[in-house]
Amino acid sequence: MKVAFIGLGTMGGPMALNVMKAGHDLIIHNRTRHKEELLAAHGAKRAASPGEAALEAEVIITSLSDTPDVEEVVLGNNGIIHGARPGSAVVDMSTISPDATRKMEQVLRAKGIKMIDAPVSGGSEGAQQGTLAIMVGGDPADVERVMPVLQAIGTKITHVGPIGAGQLTKAINQTIISGVYLSIAEGMVLGLKAGLDMDKVVEAIGVGAAGSWVLTYRSKNMIDNNYPLGFRVRLHHKDLGIALETAKKLGVTMLVAALMDQIETGIVARGYGDEDVSAVARSIREQSGID
Amino acid sequence: MKVAFIGLGTMGGPMALNVMKAGHDLIIHNRTRHKEELLAAHGAKRAASPGEAALEAEVIITSLSDTPDVEEVVLGNNGIIHGARPGSAVVDMSTISPDATRKMEQVLRAKGIKMIDAPVSGGSEGAQQGTLAIMVGGDPADVERVMPVLQAIGTKITHVGPIGAGQLTKAINQTIISGVYLSIAEGMVLGLKAGLDMDKVVEAIGVGAAGSWVLTYRSKNMIDNNYPLGFRVRLHHKDLGIALETAKKLGVTMLVAALMDQIETGIVARGYGDEDVSAVARSIREQSGID
Repeated sequence: MKVAFIGLGTMGGPMALNVMKAGHDLIIHNRTRHKEELLAAHGAKRAASPGEAALEAEVIITSLSDTPDVEEVVLGNNGIIHGARPGSAVVDMSTISPDATRKMEQVLRAKGIKMIDAPVSGGSEGAQQGTLAIMVGGDPADVERVMPVLQAIGTKITHVGPIGAGQLTKAINQTIISGVYLSIAEGMVLGLKAGLDMDKVVEAIGVGAAGSWVLTYRSKNMIDNNYPLGFRVRLHHKDLGIALETAKKLGVTMLVAALMDQIETGIVARGYGDEDVSAVARSIREQSGID
Repeated sequence: MKVAFIGLGTMGGPMALNVMKAGHDLIIHNRTRHKEELLAAHGAKRAASPGEAALEAEVIITSLSDTPDVEEVVLGNNGIIHGARPGSAVVDMSTISPDATRKMEQVLRAKGIKMIDAPVSGGSEGAQQGTLAIMVGGDPADVERVMPVLQAIGTKITHVGPIGAGQLTKAINQTIISGVYLSIAEGMVLGLKAGLDMDKVVEAIGVGAAGSWVLTYRSKNMIDNNYPLGFRVRLHHKDLGIALETAKKLGVTMLVAALMDQIETGIVARGYGDEDVSAVARSIREQSGID
Protein backbone atom coordinates (compact mmCIF):
# COMPACT_ATOMS: atom_id res chain seq x y z
CA MET A 1 0.00 0.00 0.00
CA LYS A 2 0.97 3.65 -0.35
CA VAL A 3 1.51 4.82 3.23
CA ALA A 4 2.25 8.34 4.49
CA PHE A 5 3.90 8.52 7.90
CA ILE A 6 3.93 11.79 9.81
CA GLY A 7 5.89 12.08 13.07
CA LEU A 8 9.23 10.27 13.14
CA GLY A 9 10.11 10.46 16.84
CA THR A 10 11.25 7.77 19.27
CA MET A 11 8.10 5.78 18.47
CA GLY A 12 7.22 6.93 14.94
CA GLY A 13 10.71 6.52 13.47
CA PRO A 14 11.08 2.78 14.06
CA MET A 15 7.37 2.19 13.36
CA ALA A 16 7.75 3.83 9.94
CA LEU A 17 10.82 1.74 9.24
CA ASN A 18 8.85 -1.44 9.99
CA VAL A 19 6.08 -0.33 7.62
CA MET A 20 8.67 0.09 4.86
CA LYS A 21 10.33 -3.25 5.66
CA ALA A 22 6.93 -4.92 5.24
CA GLY A 23 6.99 -3.80 1.61
CA HIS A 24 4.75 -0.71 1.66
CA ASP A 25 5.62 2.47 -0.27
CA LEU A 26 6.48 5.12 2.29
CA ILE A 27 6.09 8.91 2.12
CA ILE A 28 7.38 10.68 5.23
CA HIS A 29 7.17 14.04 6.91
CA ASN A 30 8.51 15.35 10.20
CA ARG A 31 8.29 18.89 11.58
CA THR A 32 12.02 18.75 12.33
CA ARG A 33 12.94 17.85 8.77
CA HIS A 34 16.38 16.29 9.37
CA LYS A 35 14.68 13.39 11.17
CA GLU A 36 13.44 12.31 7.72
CA GLU A 37 16.99 11.59 6.54
CA LEU A 38 17.46 8.09 7.96
CA LEU A 39 14.27 6.78 6.39
CA ALA A 40 14.94 8.64 3.14
CA ALA A 41 18.29 6.81 2.98
CA HIS A 42 16.27 3.56 3.18
CA GLY A 43 14.19 4.69 0.19
CA ALA A 44 11.29 6.67 1.70
CA LYS A 45 10.00 9.70 -0.23
CA ARG A 46 10.11 13.01 1.65
CA ALA A 47 7.18 15.45 1.70
CA ALA A 48 7.36 19.13 2.68
CA SER A 49 4.13 19.10 4.72
CA PRO A 50 1.50 16.71 6.11
CA GLY A 51 -0.87 17.77 3.33
CA GLU A 52 1.71 17.00 0.66
CA ALA A 53 2.54 13.65 2.29
CA ALA A 54 -1.15 12.72 2.16
CA LEU A 55 -1.64 13.51 -1.56
CA GLU A 56 -1.14 10.02 -2.99
CA ALA A 57 -1.46 7.92 0.16
CA GLU A 58 -4.07 5.27 0.81
CA VAL A 59 -3.20 5.21 4.52
CA ILE A 60 -1.88 8.24 6.44
CA ILE A 61 -0.34 7.44 9.82
CA THR A 62 0.29 10.05 12.52
CA SER A 63 2.52 9.43 15.54
CA LEU A 64 2.73 12.67 17.51
CA SER A 65 3.09 13.93 21.07
CA ASP A 66 -0.27 15.29 22.14
CA THR A 67 -3.76 16.37 21.10
CA PRO A 68 -2.87 19.85 19.72
CA ASP A 69 -0.09 18.36 17.57
CA VAL A 70 -2.49 15.91 15.95
CA GLU A 71 -5.14 18.62 15.45
CA GLU A 72 -2.57 20.85 13.72
CA VAL A 73 -1.22 18.06 11.50
CA VAL A 74 -4.69 16.81 10.54
CA LEU A 75 -6.72 20.03 10.28
CA GLY A 76 -4.20 22.93 10.25
CA ASN A 77 -2.76 24.89 7.31
CA ASN A 78 -0.90 22.39 5.14
CA GLY A 79 -2.69 19.68 7.14
CA ILE A 80 -3.67 16.20 5.99
CA ILE A 81 -7.24 17.32 5.29
CA HIS A 82 -5.98 19.58 2.51
CA GLY A 83 -4.13 16.77 0.72
CA ALA A 84 -5.84 13.48 1.46
CA ARG A 85 -7.98 11.86 -1.20
CA PRO A 86 -11.55 10.80 -0.47
CA GLY A 87 -11.49 7.14 0.51
CA SER A 88 -8.08 7.37 2.16
CA ALA A 89 -7.75 6.61 5.88
CA VAL A 90 -5.98 8.57 8.62
CA VAL A 91 -4.64 6.26 11.34
CA ASP A 92 -3.68 8.23 14.44
CA MET A 93 -1.29 6.20 16.57
CA SER A 94 -0.56 9.00 19.05
CA THR A 95 -2.08 8.94 22.54
CA ILE A 96 -4.54 11.85 22.60
CA SER A 97 -8.00 12.86 23.80
CA PRO A 98 -10.82 10.47 22.80
CA ASP A 99 -13.16 13.47 22.43
CA ALA A 100 -10.81 15.38 20.14
CA THR A 101 -10.39 12.17 18.12
CA ARG A 102 -14.13 11.88 17.58
CA LYS A 103 -14.39 15.54 16.54
CA MET A 104 -11.57 15.19 13.99
CA GLU A 105 -13.20 12.07 12.60
CA GLN A 106 -16.41 14.02 11.96
CA VAL A 107 -14.58 16.79 10.12
CA LEU A 108 -12.65 14.28 8.00
CA ARG A 109 -15.74 12.20 7.29
CA ALA A 110 -17.47 15.28 5.81
CA LYS A 111 -14.69 15.27 3.18
CA GLY A 112 -14.92 11.52 2.57
CA ILE A 113 -11.73 10.76 4.53
CA LYS A 114 -11.82 7.90 7.06
CA MET A 115 -10.24 8.09 10.49
CA ILE A 116 -9.12 5.35 12.87
CA ASP A 117 -7.55 5.77 16.31
CA ALA A 118 -4.84 3.25 17.07
CA PRO A 119 -2.70 4.19 20.10
CA VAL A 120 0.02 1.77 21.06
CA SER A 121 1.72 0.41 24.14
CA GLY A 122 5.02 -1.41 24.46
CA GLY A 123 7.50 1.46 24.43
CA SER A 124 10.39 2.25 22.13
CA GLU A 125 11.62 -1.35 22.33
CA GLY A 126 8.25 -2.60 21.04
CA ALA A 127 8.35 0.05 18.31
CA GLN A 128 11.76 -1.13 17.11
CA GLN A 129 10.90 -4.82 17.22
CA GLY A 130 7.43 -4.39 15.71
CA THR A 131 5.83 -5.99 18.76
CA LEU A 132 3.62 -3.13 19.96
CA ALA A 133 0.13 -3.69 21.31
CA ILE A 134 -2.32 -1.61 19.26
CA MET A 135 -5.74 -0.57 20.60
CA VAL A 136 -7.97 0.24 17.64
CA GLY A 137 -11.17 2.27 17.33
CA GLY A 138 -13.07 2.75 14.07
CA ASP A 139 -15.53 1.29 11.57
CA PRO A 140 -14.89 -2.43 11.04
CA ALA A 141 -14.43 -2.10 7.26
CA ASP A 142 -11.90 0.71 7.65
CA VAL A 143 -10.01 -1.20 10.34
CA GLU A 144 -9.85 -4.27 8.13
CA ARG A 145 -8.49 -2.24 5.24
CA VAL A 146 -5.57 -0.79 7.23
CA MET A 147 -4.83 -4.05 9.06
CA PRO A 148 -1.85 -5.03 6.80
CA VAL A 149 -0.12 -1.79 7.82
CA LEU A 150 -0.92 -2.25 11.53
CA GLN A 151 0.44 -5.79 11.34
CA ALA A 152 3.79 -4.38 10.26
CA ILE A 153 3.88 -2.32 13.45
CA GLY A 154 2.44 -4.50 16.21
CA THR A 155 1.70 -8.08 17.17
CA LYS A 156 -1.26 -7.68 19.54
CA ILE A 157 -3.90 -5.74 17.61
CA THR A 158 -7.35 -5.43 19.20
CA HIS A 159 -10.27 -3.71 17.50
CA VAL A 160 -12.06 -2.50 20.63
CA GLY A 161 -14.97 -0.51 19.17
CA PRO A 162 -15.94 2.62 17.21
CA ILE A 163 -13.83 5.76 16.72
CA GLY A 164 -12.31 6.88 20.04
CA ALA A 165 -12.45 3.39 21.59
CA GLY A 166 -8.72 2.91 21.06
CA GLN A 167 -7.93 6.14 22.93
CA LEU A 168 -10.37 5.25 25.71
CA THR A 169 -8.70 1.85 26.06
CA LYS A 170 -5.29 3.51 26.27
CA ALA A 171 -6.68 5.86 28.96
CA ILE A 172 -7.86 2.80 30.92
CA ASN A 173 -4.42 1.22 30.49
CA GLN A 174 -2.69 4.32 31.89
CA THR A 175 -5.23 4.53 34.73
CA ILE A 176 -4.66 0.91 35.75
CA ILE A 177 -0.88 1.07 35.82
CA SER A 178 -1.05 4.08 38.19
CA GLY A 179 -2.13 2.10 41.25
CA VAL A 180 0.05 -0.84 40.30
CA TYR A 181 3.22 1.29 40.29
CA LEU A 182 2.28 3.18 43.46
CA SER A 183 1.34 0.12 45.50
CA ILE A 184 4.43 -1.78 44.44
CA ALA A 185 6.51 1.23 45.46
CA GLU A 186 4.80 1.21 48.87
CA GLY A 187 5.40 -2.52 49.25
CA MET A 188 9.05 -2.27 48.22
CA VAL A 189 9.73 0.59 50.65
CA LEU A 190 7.98 -1.32 53.46
CA GLY A 191 10.25 -4.28 52.83
CA LEU A 192 13.40 -2.19 52.47
CA LYS A 193 12.81 -0.42 55.77
CA ALA A 194 12.13 -3.79 57.41
CA GLY A 195 15.52 -4.97 56.13
CA LEU A 196 14.22 -7.80 53.96
CA ASP A 197 16.00 -9.37 51.00
CA MET A 198 13.68 -7.82 48.43
CA ASP A 199 14.67 -10.12 45.59
CA LYS A 200 13.38 -13.02 47.68
CA VAL A 201 10.21 -11.11 48.54
CA VAL A 202 9.47 -10.44 44.87
CA GLU A 203 10.15 -14.09 44.10
CA ALA A 204 7.80 -15.21 46.90
CA ILE A 205 4.83 -13.05 45.92
CA GLY A 206 5.28 -12.72 42.17
CA VAL A 207 3.33 -15.79 41.16
CA GLY A 208 0.20 -15.12 43.26
CA ALA A 209 -2.49 -12.45 43.50
CA ALA A 210 0.13 -9.69 43.83
CA GLY A 211 1.72 -10.63 40.52
CA SER A 212 1.88 -8.13 37.66
CA TRP A 213 3.99 -6.99 34.73
CA VAL A 214 5.21 -4.05 36.83
CA LEU A 215 6.24 -6.26 39.75
CA THR A 216 8.13 -8.59 37.41
CA TYR A 217 9.86 -5.94 35.29
CA ARG A 218 10.01 -2.73 37.35
CA SER A 219 10.26 -3.58 41.08
CA LYS A 220 14.03 -3.97 40.71
CA ASN A 221 14.28 -0.30 39.67
CA MET A 222 12.49 0.69 42.88
CA ILE A 223 14.69 -1.55 45.04
CA ASP A 224 17.87 -0.16 43.43
CA ASN A 225 16.53 3.43 43.31
CA ASN A 226 17.65 3.59 39.68
CA TYR A 227 15.14 4.12 36.88
CA PRO A 228 16.40 3.41 33.36
CA LEU A 229 13.82 3.59 30.53
CA GLY A 230 11.28 1.95 30.01
CA PHE A 231 8.59 4.55 29.61
CA ARG A 232 9.07 8.17 30.61
CA VAL A 233 7.26 9.61 33.63
CA ARG A 234 6.41 12.76 31.66
CA LEU A 235 4.71 10.74 28.93
CA HIS A 236 2.66 8.70 31.38
CA HIS A 237 1.81 11.94 33.17
CA LYS A 238 0.57 13.45 29.90
CA ASP A 239 -1.48 10.32 29.14
CA LEU A 240 -2.90 10.21 32.68
CA GLY A 241 -4.01 13.83 32.26
CA ILE A 242 -6.06 12.71 29.25
CA ALA A 243 -7.54 9.85 31.30
CA LEU A 244 -8.47 12.15 34.19
CA GLU A 245 -9.99 14.73 31.84
CA THR A 246 -12.01 11.97 30.16
CA ALA A 247 -13.10 10.62 33.56
CA LYS A 248 -14.21 14.09 34.64
CA LYS A 249 -16.35 14.48 31.51
CA LEU A 250 -17.88 11.03 31.97
CA GLY A 251 -18.39 11.50 35.72
CA VAL A 252 -15.98 8.86 37.01
CA THR A 253 -14.21 9.35 40.36
CA MET A 254 -10.61 8.11 40.12
CA LEU A 255 -8.88 8.60 43.45
CA VAL A 256 -5.75 6.55 42.81
CA ALA A 257 -5.21 7.95 39.31
CA ALA A 258 -5.52 11.48 40.74
CA LEU A 259 -2.98 10.64 43.45
CA MET A 260 -0.56 9.31 40.81
CA ASP A 261 -1.07 12.49 38.77
CA GLN A 262 -0.08 14.61 41.77
CA ILE A 263 2.95 12.46 42.60
CA GLU A 264 4.09 12.57 38.97
CA THR A 265 3.70 16.37 38.96
CA GLY A 266 6.28 16.49 41.75
CA ILE A 267 8.59 13.94 40.12
CA VAL A 268 8.57 15.89 36.84
CA ALA A 269 9.00 19.26 38.61
CA ARG A 270 12.11 17.97 40.35
CA GLY A 271 13.74 16.98 37.08
CA TYR A 272 13.02 13.24 36.95
CA GLY A 273 10.50 13.44 34.10
CA ASP A 274 12.75 11.57 31.67
CA GLU A 275 13.23 8.62 34.02
CA ASP A 276 11.08 5.50 33.85
CA VAL A 277 7.57 5.62 35.40
CA SER A 278 8.88 3.41 38.22
CA ALA A 279 10.65 6.58 39.44
CA VAL A 280 7.42 7.43 41.30
CA ALA A 281 9.02 5.19 43.95
CA ARG A 282 11.36 8.14 44.62
CA SER A 283 8.42 9.90 46.22
CA ILE A 284 7.50 6.91 48.45
CA ARG A 285 11.15 6.33 49.37
CA GLU A 286 11.78 9.97 50.24
CA GLN A 287 8.65 10.55 52.27
CA SER A 288 9.68 7.44 54.23
CA GLY A 289 13.23 8.67 54.71
CA ILE A 290 15.26 6.27 52.56
CA ASP A 291 16.36 8.30 49.53
CA MET B 1 6.57 -36.76 61.37
CA LYS B 2 4.31 -36.26 64.35
CA VAL B 3 2.38 -33.08 63.53
CA ALA B 4 -0.07 -31.16 65.72
CA PHE B 5 -2.51 -28.92 63.84
CA ILE B 6 -4.42 -26.23 65.69
CA GLY B 7 -7.11 -24.24 63.89
CA LEU B 8 -9.25 -26.17 61.43
CA GLY B 9 -11.12 -23.38 59.66
CA THR B 10 -11.61 -22.68 55.94
CA MET B 11 -7.84 -22.69 55.47
CA GLY B 12 -6.60 -24.93 58.32
CA GLY B 13 -9.06 -27.77 57.74
CA PRO B 14 -7.97 -28.67 54.20
CA MET B 15 -4.31 -27.88 55.02
CA ALA B 16 -4.40 -30.39 57.89
CA LEU B 17 -5.99 -32.97 55.63
CA ASN B 18 -3.16 -32.56 53.13
CA VAL B 19 -0.59 -33.02 55.92
CA MET B 20 -2.26 -36.29 56.86
CA LYS B 21 -2.52 -37.42 53.23
CA ALA B 22 1.25 -36.91 52.91
CA GLY B 23 1.71 -39.62 55.57
CA HIS B 24 2.33 -37.60 58.72
CA ASP B 25 0.76 -38.56 62.09
CA LEU B 26 -1.79 -35.87 62.90
CA ILE B 27 -3.00 -34.59 66.27
CA ILE B 28 -5.70 -31.93 65.96
CA HIS B 29 -7.37 -29.32 68.07
CA ASN B 30 -9.97 -26.67 67.31
CA ARG B 31 -11.64 -24.24 69.70
CA THR B 32 -15.03 -25.21 68.25
CA ARG B 33 -14.49 -28.90 68.91
CA HIS B 34 -16.97 -30.38 66.41
CA LYS B 35 -14.76 -29.12 63.57
CA GLU B 36 -12.30 -31.87 64.57
CA GLU B 37 -14.75 -34.59 63.57
CA LEU B 38 -14.09 -34.74 59.84
CA LEU B 39 -10.33 -35.15 60.30
CA ALA B 40 -10.83 -37.57 63.21
CA ALA B 41 -12.92 -39.72 60.85
CA HIS B 42 -9.85 -39.77 58.54
CA GLY B 43 -7.73 -41.03 61.46
CA ALA B 44 -6.44 -37.88 63.19
CA LYS B 45 -6.09 -37.98 66.98
CA ARG B 46 -8.08 -35.33 68.88
CA ALA B 47 -6.59 -33.25 71.71
CA ALA B 48 -8.56 -31.26 74.32
CA SER B 49 -6.29 -28.19 74.19
CA PRO B 50 -3.39 -26.69 72.21
CA GLY B 51 -1.04 -27.70 75.06
CA GLU B 52 -2.23 -31.30 74.94
CA ALA B 53 -1.97 -31.38 71.14
CA ALA B 54 1.66 -30.23 71.41
CA LEU B 55 2.75 -32.90 73.93
CA GLU B 56 4.18 -35.48 71.53
CA ALA B 57 4.48 -33.39 68.37
CA GLU B 58 7.70 -32.59 66.50
CA VAL B 59 5.95 -29.86 64.52
CA ILE B 60 3.02 -27.79 65.81
CA ILE B 61 1.12 -25.86 63.14
CA THR B 62 -1.26 -22.99 63.91
CA SER B 63 -3.74 -21.59 61.39
CA LEU B 64 -5.83 -18.96 63.17
CA SER B 65 -7.64 -15.69 62.46
CA ASP B 66 -5.59 -12.92 64.01
CA THR B 67 -2.73 -11.95 66.34
CA PRO B 68 -4.60 -12.33 69.68
CA ASP B 69 -5.80 -15.83 68.70
CA VAL B 70 -2.25 -16.97 68.02
CA GLU B 71 -0.95 -15.38 71.23
CA GLU B 72 -3.64 -17.18 73.25
CA VAL B 73 -3.05 -20.55 71.57
CA VAL B 74 0.75 -20.30 71.88
CA LEU B 75 1.22 -18.59 75.26
CA GLY B 76 -2.17 -18.73 77.06
CA ASN B 77 -3.45 -21.16 79.71
CA ASN B 78 -3.42 -24.61 78.09
CA GLY B 79 -1.28 -23.07 75.35
CA ILE B 80 1.33 -24.78 73.23
CA ILE B 81 4.14 -23.48 75.44
CA HIS B 82 2.87 -25.61 78.32
CA GLY B 83 2.93 -28.84 76.29
CA ALA B 84 5.58 -28.57 73.60
CA ARG B 85 8.85 -30.45 74.07
CA PRO B 86 12.21 -28.68 73.78
CA GLY B 87 13.40 -29.11 70.21
CA SER B 88 9.93 -29.09 68.73
CA ALA B 89 8.95 -26.34 66.27
CA VAL B 90 5.86 -24.12 66.18
CA VAL B 91 4.93 -23.16 62.60
CA ASP B 92 2.43 -20.31 62.56
CA MET B 93 0.64 -20.20 59.21
CA SER B 94 -1.83 -17.49 60.23
CA THR B 95 -1.46 -13.93 58.96
CA ILE B 96 -0.55 -11.86 62.03
CA SER B 97 1.68 -9.05 63.26
CA PRO B 98 5.40 -9.50 62.46
CA ASP B 99 6.25 -7.82 65.79
CA ALA B 100 4.04 -10.12 67.85
CA THR B 101 5.57 -13.05 65.96
CA ARG B 102 9.10 -12.03 66.96
CA LYS B 103 8.05 -11.57 70.59
CA MET B 104 6.47 -15.03 70.75
CA GLU B 105 9.56 -16.55 69.20
CA GLN B 106 11.69 -15.07 71.98
CA VAL B 107 9.43 -16.48 74.70
CA LEU B 108 9.38 -19.92 73.06
CA ARG B 109 13.14 -19.91 72.45
CA ALA B 110 13.75 -19.41 76.20
CA LYS B 111 12.06 -22.79 76.68
CA GLY B 112 13.97 -24.49 73.87
CA ILE B 113 11.03 -24.40 71.46
CA LYS B 114 11.60 -23.18 67.89
CA MET B 115 9.23 -20.88 66.02
CA ILE B 116 8.76 -20.28 62.32
CA ASP B 117 6.29 -17.92 60.65
CA ALA B 118 4.81 -19.26 57.43
CA PRO B 119 1.76 -17.29 56.27
CA VAL B 120 0.16 -18.44 53.03
CA SER B 121 -1.56 -17.02 50.00
CA GLY B 122 -3.72 -18.75 47.45
CA GLY B 123 -7.10 -18.87 49.20
CA SER B 124 -9.33 -21.78 50.17
CA GLU B 125 -8.91 -23.30 46.72
CA GLY B 126 -5.13 -23.39 47.16
CA ALA B 127 -5.58 -24.85 50.66
CA GLN B 128 -7.71 -27.69 49.30
CA GLN B 129 -5.44 -28.46 46.36
CA GLY B 130 -2.22 -28.13 48.36
CA THR B 131 -0.98 -25.41 46.00
CA LEU B 132 -0.60 -22.51 48.45
CA ALA B 133 2.30 -20.07 48.28
CA ILE B 134 4.10 -20.07 51.65
CA MET B 135 6.27 -17.16 52.82
CA VAL B 136 8.65 -18.45 55.48
CA GLY B 137 10.63 -16.69 58.20
CA GLY B 138 12.96 -18.47 60.64
CA ASP B 139 16.37 -20.00 61.22
CA PRO B 140 17.52 -21.97 58.15
CA ALA B 141 18.02 -25.24 60.08
CA ASP B 142 14.53 -25.04 61.58
CA VAL B 143 12.97 -24.21 58.22
CA GLU B 144 14.75 -27.16 56.60
CA ARG B 145 13.47 -29.51 59.31
CA VAL B 146 9.78 -28.57 58.82
CA MET B 147 10.04 -28.44 55.02
CA PRO B 148 8.48 -31.92 54.46
CA VAL B 149 5.35 -30.71 56.24
CA LEU B 150 5.24 -27.40 54.34
CA GLN B 151 5.60 -29.30 51.08
CA ALA B 152 2.39 -31.18 51.88
CA ILE B 153 0.58 -27.82 52.10
CA GLY B 154 2.02 -25.64 49.36
CA THR B 155 3.91 -25.70 46.08
CA LYS B 156 5.66 -22.32 46.12
CA ILE B 157 7.65 -22.18 49.36
CA THR B 158 10.07 -19.28 49.80
CA HIS B 159 12.35 -18.90 52.82
CA VAL B 160 12.54 -15.11 52.87
CA GLY B 161 14.60 -14.44 56.00
CA PRO B 162 14.65 -14.64 59.82
CA ILE B 163 11.63 -14.91 62.12
CA GLY B 164 8.94 -12.39 61.12
CA ALA B 165 10.11 -12.17 57.49
CA GLY B 166 7.22 -14.36 56.35
CA GLN B 167 4.69 -12.04 57.97
CA LEU B 168 6.43 -8.96 56.57
CA THR B 169 6.31 -10.49 53.10
CA LYS B 170 2.61 -11.23 53.51
CA ALA B 171 2.08 -7.59 54.60
CA ILE B 172 3.88 -6.45 51.42
CA ASN B 173 1.69 -8.79 49.37
CA GLN B 174 -1.50 -7.33 50.86
CA THR B 175 -0.17 -3.78 50.38
CA ILE B 176 0.61 -4.36 46.72
CA ILE B 177 -2.76 -5.84 45.80
CA SER B 178 -4.52 -2.77 47.28
CA GLY B 179 -3.57 -0.41 44.49
CA VAL B 180 -3.95 -3.09 41.86
CA TYR B 181 -7.59 -3.74 42.81
CA LEU B 182 -8.42 -0.02 43.17
CA SER B 183 -6.86 1.06 39.89
CA ILE B 184 -8.45 -1.76 37.96
CA ALA B 185 -11.80 -0.80 39.47
CA GLU B 186 -11.22 2.79 38.31
CA GLY B 187 -10.26 1.62 34.84
CA MET B 188 -13.25 -0.71 34.54
CA VAL B 189 -15.70 2.01 35.64
CA LEU B 190 -14.13 4.49 33.19
CA GLY B 191 -14.67 2.00 30.37
CA LEU B 192 -18.20 1.06 31.46
CA LYS B 193 -19.30 4.69 31.58
CA ALA B 194 -17.73 5.24 28.15
CA GLY B 195 -19.82 2.33 26.84
CA LEU B 196 -16.91 0.12 25.80
CA ASP B 197 -16.99 -3.65 25.39
CA MET B 198 -14.96 -4.32 28.52
CA ASP B 199 -14.07 -7.92 27.64
CA LYS B 200 -12.30 -6.56 24.56
CA VAL B 201 -10.59 -3.85 26.62
CA VAL B 202 -9.26 -6.41 29.10
CA GLU B 203 -8.08 -8.56 26.20
CA ALA B 204 -6.33 -5.59 24.58
CA ILE B 205 -4.41 -4.43 27.66
CA GLY B 206 -3.95 -7.68 29.59
CA VAL B 207 -0.66 -8.71 27.98
CA GLY B 208 1.17 -5.40 28.42
CA ALA B 209 2.31 -3.17 31.26
CA ALA B 210 -1.22 -3.08 32.74
CA GLY B 211 -1.29 -6.86 33.05
CA SER B 212 -1.73 -8.51 36.46
CA TRP B 213 -3.25 -11.50 38.22
CA VAL B 214 -6.12 -9.28 39.39
CA LEU B 215 -6.86 -7.97 35.87
CA THR B 216 -6.89 -11.52 34.49
CA TYR B 217 -8.91 -13.16 37.26
CA ARG B 218 -10.97 -10.44 38.96
CA SER B 219 -11.81 -7.67 36.44
CA LYS B 220 -14.82 -9.72 35.27
CA ASN B 221 -16.33 -9.48 38.79
CA MET B 222 -16.04 -5.69 38.60
CA ILE B 223 -17.58 -5.54 35.12
CA ASP B 224 -20.49 -7.78 36.19
CA ASN B 225 -20.81 -6.11 39.63
CA ASN B 226 -20.88 -9.59 41.16
CA TYR B 227 -18.18 -10.73 43.58
CA PRO B 228 -18.05 -14.47 44.30
CA LEU B 229 -15.12 -15.69 46.46
CA GLY B 230 -12.10 -15.57 46.00
CA PHE B 231 -10.73 -13.93 49.10
CA ARG B 232 -12.96 -12.09 51.55
CA VAL B 233 -12.82 -8.29 51.83
CA ARG B 234 -12.89 -8.56 55.65
CA LEU B 235 -9.81 -10.79 55.69
CA HIS B 236 -7.85 -8.55 53.36
CA HIS B 237 -8.97 -5.61 55.48
CA LYS B 238 -7.64 -7.34 58.60
CA ASP B 239 -4.35 -8.14 56.87
CA LEU B 240 -4.03 -4.61 55.53
CA GLY B 241 -4.48 -3.29 59.08
CA ILE B 242 -1.42 -5.33 60.07
CA ALA B 243 0.51 -3.93 57.10
CA LEU B 244 -0.42 -0.34 57.95
CA GLU B 245 0.43 -0.81 61.63
CA THR B 246 3.80 -2.28 60.61
CA ALA B 247 4.39 0.59 58.18
CA LYS B 248 3.61 3.11 60.92
CA LYS B 249 6.12 1.50 63.27
CA LEU B 250 8.77 1.40 60.54
CA GLY B 251 8.02 4.93 59.34
CA VAL B 252 6.69 4.14 55.87
CA THR B 253 4.06 6.38 54.24
CA MET B 254 1.54 4.23 52.35
CA LEU B 255 -1.06 6.48 50.74
CA VAL B 256 -2.73 3.94 48.47
CA ALA B 257 -2.86 1.22 51.14
CA ALA B 258 -4.46 3.72 53.54
CA LEU B 259 -7.03 4.64 50.89
CA MET B 260 -7.85 0.97 50.33
CA ASP B 261 -8.21 0.52 54.10
CA GLN B 262 -10.78 3.32 54.24
CA ILE B 263 -12.71 2.03 51.23
CA GLU B 264 -12.77 -1.47 52.70
CA THR B 265 -14.04 -0.07 56.01
CA GLY B 266 -17.07 1.25 54.13
CA ILE B 267 -17.55 -1.95 52.10
CA VAL B 268 -17.48 -4.07 55.29
CA ALA B 269 -19.75 -1.64 57.18
CA ARG B 270 -22.36 -1.91 54.48
CA GLY B 271 -22.49 -5.69 54.72
CA TYR B 272 -20.25 -6.74 51.83
CA GLY B 273 -17.36 -8.03 53.98
CA ASP B 274 -17.86 -11.64 52.94
CA GLU B 275 -17.67 -10.84 49.24
CA ASP B 276 -14.45 -11.10 47.25
CA VAL B 277 -11.87 -8.27 47.57
CA SER B 278 -12.83 -7.19 44.04
CA ALA B 279 -16.02 -5.84 45.68
CA VAL B 280 -14.09 -2.63 46.38
CA ALA B 281 -15.24 -1.82 42.82
CA ARG B 282 -18.70 -1.27 44.39
CA SER B 283 -17.32 1.91 45.90
CA ILE B 284 -15.88 3.20 42.60
CA ARG B 285 -19.04 2.23 40.71
CA GLU B 286 -21.35 3.91 43.20
CA GLN B 287 -19.40 7.13 43.58
CA SER B 288 -19.52 7.32 39.77
CA GLY B 289 -23.26 6.63 39.62
CA ILE B 290 -23.40 3.17 38.06
CA ASP B 291 -24.39 0.79 40.86
